[in-house]
Amino acid sequence: MAASRNLPIGFEASVAGGIPILRVIHESTAGDRLRAVHGILNGTANYILTQMESRAIEFDQALQEAQAAGYAEADPSLDIDGFDARDKLCILARMAFGGRLKVSDIPTYGIRQVRAIDIHSAHRLDSTIRLVGSAEQTEAGLEVSVRPWLVGCRSMLAKVEGVNNAVFLLGDKIGMQMFYGRGAGGDATGAAVVSDLIEIARDLAAGQLSAKKVSGFLDSHDVGICPKPRPVSWYLRLTVKDQRGIVARVAEVIAHRDINIDSLEQEPHLPKERLSFVITVEPVSEPIIQRAVGAINAFEFMLEPVLLLRVE
Amino acid sequence: MAASRNLPIGFEASVAGGIPILRVIHESTAGDRLRAVHGILNGTANYILTQMESRAIEFDQALQEAQAAGYAEADPSLDIDGFDARDKLCILARMAFGGRLKVSDIPTYGIRQVRAIDIHSAHRLDSTIRLVGSAEQTEAGLEVSVRPWLVGCRSMLAKVEGVNNAVFLLGDKIGMQMFYGRGAGGDATGAAVVSDLIEIARDLAAGQLSAKKVSGFLDSHDVGICPKPRPVSWYLRLTVKDQRGIVARVAEVIAHRDINIDSLEQEPHLPKERLSFVITVEPVSEPIIQRAVGAINAFEFMLEPVLLLRVE
Repeated sequence: MAASRNLPIGFEASVAGGIPILRVIHESTAGDRLRAVHGILNGTANYILTQMESRAIEFDQALQEAQAAGYAEADPSLDIDGFDARDKLCILARMAFGGRLKVSDIPTYGIRQVRAIDIHSAHRLDSTIRLVGSAEQTEAGLEVSVRPWLVGCRSMLAKVEGVNNAVFLLGDKIGMQMFYGRGAGGDATGAAVVSDLIEIARDLAAGQLSAKKVSGFLDSHDVGICPKPRPVSWYLRLTVKDQRGIVARVAEVIAHRDINIDSLEQEPHLPKERLSFVITVEPVSEPIIQRAVGAINAFEFMLEPVLLLRVE
Repeated sequence: MAASRNLPIGFEASVAGGIPILRVIHESTAGDRLRAVHGILNGTANYILTQMESRAIEFDQALQEAQAAGYAEADPSLDIDGFDARDKLCILARMAFGGRLKVSDIPTYGIRQVRAIDIHSAHRLDSTIRLVGSAEQTEAGLEVSVRPWLVGCRSMLAKVEGVNNAVFLLGDKIGMQMFYGRGAGGDATGAAVVSDLIEIARDLAAGQLSAKKVSGFLDSHDVGICPKPRPVSWYLRLTVKDQRGIVARVAEVIAHRDINIDSLEQEPHLPKERLSFVITVEPVSEPIIQRAVGAINAFEFMLEPVLLLRVE
């Protein structure tokens, strides 16, 4: 089977304790139609988010602790800006859906902007925040991104805590499958749940893996990325210097693009010179919400760019 | 690797969409020390429990609906009395820990006695009920059983809903790994998450599998079952005909065995001729709680045997 479907031999042997996730995807694509692959693919980012969540600490403190614990490098950008998750997602998506996909074509947002106030607002919405890589095959093409999501507390995504990873496969026959376990870092390297993925990503990043070695990477056609992703709900957090009429002006920008506000809340007990608003909006395609965010970011009262979370 | 460690060739090929769970365990045992394997191994029983949970219906109705939906056989005993889960657990445990283990040596309790009132009581304790097969290697031997557990709502076990299965592996290096997906039944057969396990169990039940074919089944020594499992907490539900002094007599039986009551609640709004009490007790080894349950069952006011749940 490996030979006939071009599964490279190396994929057959998983590191002890690791899940042969690429092999599982490879076999799933033989007997089923995969619809989506998504996952929590970076243990360091997940550690930071869940520390912020469980201990109500700020991003900077959580990051420093992750570095002290050996989970994050001195330059943590690969982890917290989503690039490591993006590289892994790229391999998963190519394996699952075939065709060439460049990492640079995957919209990637990290968690650097997430603040304690967002975790707090998420809780108010019975939710929490996770950095999610997702690739979904639709009739209009592949929807793919790495970004922070607002996920319901009852969601499987929310159950992934600490330096753990999880990969979710959705297929017509298999329904939803989930693979969960430690990510790399600390003592767990070599026993990570997706060790094979980590190895391939490392080789790719180092330019050591010839594309020919990897099945699903042989296809000559590019994956078609969907230009207008399906509507989803969004969470926006604005940090502003208080002045009269802010809410009206923001609401007007949003209404102007036919986006419906689902909820709006001003966080109480904050100093006037640095207020936070949280807005959730009804489902709308990403380009539309991004234009609204661009317009909001241009307001003179904005102290930092809008934090945008996809709502699960 | 397969050859050198006696992994039968058949194990290498998983059914499309299925997780090669036995292969994963096999490889884990090569590079790691597994401590425990447990899982929700019967989709029908899990469907019944989660229907009772989400719709507050009685056991009989949930069972009838499972039969109508094609999840349960006309004789549902294999599913609801835990025998199917026991057969699968036996294979998992032999694979994980080596040595011979007879299914008849695995204490097995099903969900036939679980009632809506138990789901209700579980919710009051921020918990729910799952049928769990567990095998844990301890210094005193293997602790192994299939029984209903009271699991916290935030537990991974609680997140396994409907006809899904999940297998959890705990090891020194791997930490906790979880594999989740559809169980057999309905359209999912052949794409179940643990298809290989289901196949082997079927062959074993039919007497078609020679023990020699299965690695980990070659060992000549028996698995040593732990005679005195470690203390855990328990949930007891008593259904009684009300009369004076019931609580005192039950409490005395429990105190007599040096068991500490953690909580005691009489369900309100029930007819006097059929009252329910729920008692949770602090950690105690199973033989001790079983002796107390035996003594309670002998009381003349007991209308049915105590329902005993292990608390996660």
